[in-house]
Amino acid sequence: MKRKRKICFVITSQIHYGRSKLILLELKKRPDVDLQIVVAASALLDTYGSVLEDLERDGFTINNRIIMTLEGGNTVAMAKTTGVGIMEFTTAFDNLQPDVVVLRADRYEVIAAAIAAAYLNISVAHIEGGDVTGTIDESVRHAITKLSHIHFPTNVAARQRIIRMGEHPKYVFNVGSADVEFVARNRFRVSEKLINYLGVGDVIDIHKPFLVVMQHPVTSEVGQNRKHINETLHAIHELGIPTIWFWPNVDAGTDEISKGIRSFREEENPHHMRFLKYLPPEQFIGLLKRSTCLVGNSSSGIKECSYLGVPAVNIGTRQHGRLKARNVVDVGYVKAAIKRAIKKQVAHGPYRRSTLYYRKNTSETIARILTRVALYSQKKFID
Amino acid sequence: MKRKRKICFVITSQIHYGRSKLILLELKKRPDVDLQIVVAASALLDTYGSVLEDLERDGFTINNRIIMTLEGGNTVAMAKTTGVGIMEFTTAFDNLQPDVVVLRADRYEVIAAAIAAAYLNISVAHIEGGDVTGTIDESVRHAITKLSHIHFPTNVAARQRIIRMGEHPKYVFNVGSADVEFVARNRFRVSEKLINYLGVGDVIDIHKPFLVVMQHPVTSEVGQNRKHINETLHAIHELGIPTIWFWPNVDAGTDEISKGIRSFREEENPHHMRFLKYLPPEQFIGLLKRSTCLVGNSSSGIKECSYLGVPAVNIGTRQHGRLKARNVVDVGYVKAAIKRAIKKQVAHGPYRRSTLYYRKNTSETIARILTRVALYSQKKFID
Amino acid sequence: MKRKRKICFVITSQIHYGRSKLILLELKKRPDVDLQIVVAASALLDTYGSVLEDLERDGFTINNRIIMTLEGGNTVAMAKTTGVGIMEFTTAFDNLQPDVVVLRADRYEVIAAAIAAAYLNISVAHIEGGDVTGTIDESVRHAITKLSHIHFPTNVAARQRIIRMGEHPKYVFNVGSADVEFVARNRFRVSEKLINYLGVGDVIDIHKPFLVVMQHPVTSEVGQNRKHINETLHAIHELGIPTIWFWPNVDAGTDEISKGIRSFREEENPHHMRFLKYLPPEQFIGLLKRSTCLVGNSSSGIKECSYLGVPAVNIGTRQHGRLKARNVVDVGYVKAAIKRAIKKQVAHGPYRRSTLYYRKNTSETIARILTRVALYSQKKFID
Amino acid sequence: MKRKRKICFVITSQIHYGRSKLILLELKKRPDVDLQIVVAASALLDTYGSVLEDLERDGFTINNRIIMTLEGGNTVAMAKTTGVGIMEFTTAFDNLQPDVVVLRADRYEVIAAAIAAAYLNISVAHIEGGDVTGTIDESVRHAITKLSHIHFPTNVAARQRIIRMGEHPKYVFNVGSADVEFVARNRFRVSEKLINYLGVGDVIDIHKPFLVVMQHPVTSEVGQNRKHINETLHAIHELGIPTIWFWPNVDAGTDEISKGIRSFREEENPHHMRFLKYLPPEQFIGLLKRSTCLVGNSSSGIKECSYLGVPAVNIGTRQHGRLKARNVVDVGYVKAAIKRAIKKQVAHGPYRRSTLYYRKNTSETIARILTRVALYSQKKFID
Repeated sequence: MKRKRKICFVITSQIHYGRSKLILLELKKRPDVDLQIVVAASALLDTYGSVLEDLERDGFTINNRIIMTLEGGNTVAMAKTTGVGIMEFTTAFDNLQPDVVVLRADRYEVIAAAIAAAYLNISVAHIEGGDVTGTIDESVRHAITKLSHIHFPTNVAARQRIIRMGEHPKYVFNVGSADVEFVARNRFRVSEKLINYLGVGDVIDIHKPFLVVMQHPVTSEVGQNRKHINETLHAIHELGIPTIWFWPNVDAGTDEISKGIRSFREEENPHHMRFLKYLPPEQFIGLLKRSTCLVGNSSSGIKECSYLGVPAVNIGTRQHGRLKARNVVDVGYVKAAIKRAIKKQVAHGPYRRSTLYYRKNTSETIARILTRVALYSQKKFID
Repeated sequence: MKRKRKICFVITSQIHYGRSKLILLELKKRPDVDLQIVVAASALLDTYGSVLEDLERDGFTINNRIIMTLEGGNTVAMAKTTGVGIMEFTTAFDNLQPDVVVLRADRYEVIAAAIAAAYLNISVAHIEGGDVTGTIDESVRHAITKLSHIHFPTNVAARQRIIRMGEHPKYVFNVGSADVEFVARNRFRVSEKLINYLGVGDVIDIHKPFLVVMQHPVTSEVGQNRKHINETLHAIHELGIPTIWFWPNVDAGTDEISKGIRSFREEENPHHMRFLKYLPPEQFIGLLKRSTCLVGNSSSGIKECSYLGVPAVNIGTRQHGRLKARNVVDVGYVKAAIKRAIKKQVAHGPYRRSTLYYRKNTSETIARILTRVALYSQKKFID
Repeated sequence: MKRKRKICFVITSQIHYGRSKLILLELKKRPDVDLQIVVAASALLDTYGSVLEDLERDGFTINNRIIMTLEGGNTVAMAKTTGVGIMEFTTAFDNLQPDVVVLRADRYEVIAAAIAAAYLNISVAHIEGGDVTGTIDESVRHAITKLSHIHFPTNVAARQRIIRMGEHPKYVFNVGSADVEFVARNRFRVSEKLINYLGVGDVIDIHKPFLVVMQHPVTSEVGQNRKHINETLHAIHELGIPTIWFWPNVDAGTDEISKGIRSFREEENPHHMRFLKYLPPEQFIGLLKRSTCLVGNSSSGIKECSYLGVPAVNIGTRQHGRLKARNVVDVGYVKAAIKRAIKKQVAHGPYRRSTLYYRKNTSETIARILTRVALYSQKKFID
Repeated sequence: MKRKRKICFVITSQIHYGRSKLILLELKKRPDVDLQIVVAASALLDTYGSVLEDLERDGFTINNRIIMTLEGGNTVAMAKTTGVGIMEFTTAFDNLQPDVVVLRADRYEVIAAAIAAAYLNISVAHIEGGDVTGTIDESVRHAITKLSHIHFPTNVAARQRIIRMGEHPKYVFNVGSADVEFVARNRFRVSEKLINYLGVGDVIDIHKPFLVVMQHPVTSEVGQNRKHINETLHAIHELGIPTIWFWPNVDAGTDEISKGIRSFREEENPHHMRFLKYLPPEQFIGLLKRSTCLVGNSSSGIKECSYLGVPAVNIGTRQHGRLKARNVVDVGYVKAAIKRAIKKQVAHGPYRRSTLYYRKNTSETIARILTRVALYSQKKFID
């Protein structure tokens, strides 16, 4: 009998799990795959939702749990977390001996895993390479590309960039976005009860219009994140539209944003806002679908919302350069501009579906390629 | 008065120091520069020569010493050393607060420093990017490019590749090779006494023809390095030409090579070979100049020797894809082929000087650019 | 001229600075001392107060800053922080080359520094060894004693225990508590304005009776800390006495306590409580002096308050076995018992000064011994 | 059915495995035990013998392999290895969730595991605590005792010391030495063929008188180890008795000793010495039994040899204070004294068996206690 291919999937954040779930299910179905799962970093921080429980409920076995995140919400903590992560992932991969390690996106935990695997001569498959954005993610994403062997960009432009960077075209697959496929493949509902059970703040009636806000720190603007979040907080406050607000990711600047939110709540005691840390992925998409407008700097506004037709107001530099459909309005960190853009989007209402990031069967395709593609270890710049 | 620019130079190996010495001297001369020096990794392993003493003798002050290398001579050790390195460099840079960190080449210690600096929003200047070679260095070199802000490739082709990878052309300077400038600028002599004082083995008369061998491990061929070194050892043994042999770098596979050499010495008790660990840079170049042929897989055969016109026999995949002048003959890991190539090169004798890697005033140009160029932190892929 | 003795003081928390300030001032005064200061761990976490600013304002130079704390508020994070800490302190001490490293108490950052110094053959001076308490601190404190060379216990019983553990009596000095000396030596005032400017919650009138609460997590009771803090929260809430509440230390269980406090505030919206993260040491003592009773499990209730005569209610196991004066009433994690004990202490009012932990000139004595004592490195169990 | 107790055995050196093998076999036999094995540090360095193969051949399953040793053979490397080790062991224990972690002796890898387990609230069982010796091991051994919950000293005096240090007598079991039981329980033979197949140097006829030398670095004498080994090398050289010499442990100073040996071989080309890195434990005991005298500073001279009656010459401070039987002669680092002592021991011949370190059924007793003793986590100094 042929040896099963050992495919190791690394999950480092709770949203990461939601966005990767279909791929994991496809891999688990395949008889020729021995699926390994490593859960690490903020996916294990309780504050950031219970990915372990979600995975177990969905029938997955976790091979290794790795706590590795340094506290501080600053750039030093991000860098050192990368260092700890390399050591930890190296031991994990050395013990699991996977044939391929599958990574996604551009955070520091991800480059840690990429370096560990690359030095161990294990093939690295990278989902979502080739995009252009702001922050340090822009550097790190392309560095991961140069350490990876199999590429799954989500759009044509990204594929072109990866090839320009010297990767072999036959290993660069534009499969569309697994996040968007996740949105497309399901009829998600959201539970008003759950929303108002979780988190803190006012009760939100999700049968009436409401906003969702997701504004993460910008690591290259450390020291200014608090000022920036204040613009958004006061814009939303003054508009008075009911709002579900998600706490930021762990990144340099997280503490600035968290403090901004906490002080704002103490001072303004706002009566139409609810603050959540985590929703299971299906619930989150269900919530997005019902929302009037997504505000902030999450890629969800650009990817998931483009397919759902949900209007998005994209604030600041974090998504700078990212390929966008018509549903997105870009604004700077200016209260008045944010208010104006939200009003405009509320007035506009839903957009037509965009398939900019969508291709059929993304996850199945990824799973099939991961299983069948000829693996290699030594890379070579293709001139 | 204008604030001096704080330029932090990272030295991670003894050969690294020799190759960077002119740049360091240029930086030290400049009144507008506050030079910081961090010495780390194998530059601090006694086995690998005494860089600290050389630096002090040359009048430099060392700001930070960082011991960080894991033992094992395997890929796990390389990966974990990277992890330790990131933590260590982060603390060092966080305390030193440089404006620019200057790195060279493509080893694991170097990507560690690049990640630390990049996350701290410090500009990274990278010397020798854009080249194509074998081993994991090929991936790591380009990943470092994507984390760097100022690029000093050594040749036109490398500059083109860096630009293709999305770096801004105005920050990519083809300045030639500092290694080759070091060779060109001096009239180095080598002391026969020193050669025969250092190391172990037979006495070598450097006034007669002799070979120099430098064969480092190939990390992507772990498990085969011993077999490969044996081919070279026996080729040299059978040729019977006096030979000065340098021990390998610390990399995955080092132990395979060291063991190969040790067993060979035990079994064959060879009477025309001397084994050295380190020579001060000037002595090393002096030795190269006198040598009949350089054998192995060091980049010295391709860079320094191209300028010196010293024939080189390049073995195996480590320099695969590297731009080469006429002085280089490529061979596989096959004793007979190695012997044949050496004989051919010995018969040919010295080549004409090549300026493939040479440009005037490399170090001064690098120092000037480092001091004057506008620094930036947020990167953006240039389509 | 005689070489100055290089004495390296390690500060790892903000309260640690307050408690060590007099010693630092004494060391700084001495002409025969080259004082080195390393600030690390939670002393650098912004949430935990600005030790750097305090140090600079007090005229100290900081030699090294080390960010090292893992996030998670769990036992894994504590253990890994110790690991990171050893690496970091080793590099710091290797670069600073101190003759003695001075450590205080029993936290994980401290054992990290002790191991780093001990392996580097540097003498370790340890303040506050020999005490008996609960939590993992109990094990760690004695392990640090066995790695240390010069001991400064704060009381006779502690000195006896250190000697029993095999330390040489002539290196075990009962100097009294520097914390208590700090209290004794000054006439601290507290600014009502500052108290009500910092933190969140209600305005507290410090001219009327008020409580201070400091309840830290108990690492060996992880999973129960939230339940335990809830008992205290509701006891205080039901008593209705104005209260200044300090957020807990970073330790396994911190998140349980923080969440407990946050949920309590959301649900109960308490109108007589204010929550602070940090007060400069002088202000803190000024506040303690005015307080009616200290509640929780901080050693301040046992040490500083014994001298001040402030009544203390000590909850749970954290200070189990610690030598106590009459001002302390011990209770379990039971709301009714906590209420009863507070009422009793409020009714009793101030106690007479106890000198259980007080000796004259503690800091000066420590500084003098550190400077003059013969240093040694090789330890030997004294039977 | 009752849950099996999860007992995690940590192996960090090859000699460690030999000395622990009987305990592992006893644990594996028990139906109420779920045995977990973690192999780490120098047990994984190829240079130091193939413990993995031995374990697998003996039918054990390895749960986790951890490469963690820093290169350098200096005190910085030892300290940082401890740091890396804590991180690694924490992840391993967090994933394995053992009820007890079993550790042995006093090296830096061992205190790393002790700290990891103690912070995770896992009970630590410690074999060989309470002894007195030289080097940093003396501090570390007792620090481990203070972090441990169940103690297995090898002799009465050690048990008394552990109790004096505040450990509860009912958890301190004098079970004798498992090393000595290993010696006592078997009729080991050594293969002359294997001895002369492994290692380098001259062929040794083990049917004639021969010495065994094991001299490890003394970490607190870094910088002097080379001088010290030279005394022994020349003593042995001048005596001219056939000698089997074992390479030193990885510790600060290892490189000094290795270099000393290598230079000696280059210069003296000695004709009656063979140098080995590793022998399987049974072979090693077989060799010891046949040897005329053990020379150096290994505890084998004091423990195993006391039972075997093999004369031992113990050099220097490493075993300073260790309980010794009559078979041991102590000398300083002086060539003449070493020669004199060896001659005296050779003249004396075998000693009578000592049972100083021997008790019947050590391993079975340890296994039974580990399985049945009530576990606890919170420690308390017993006054």
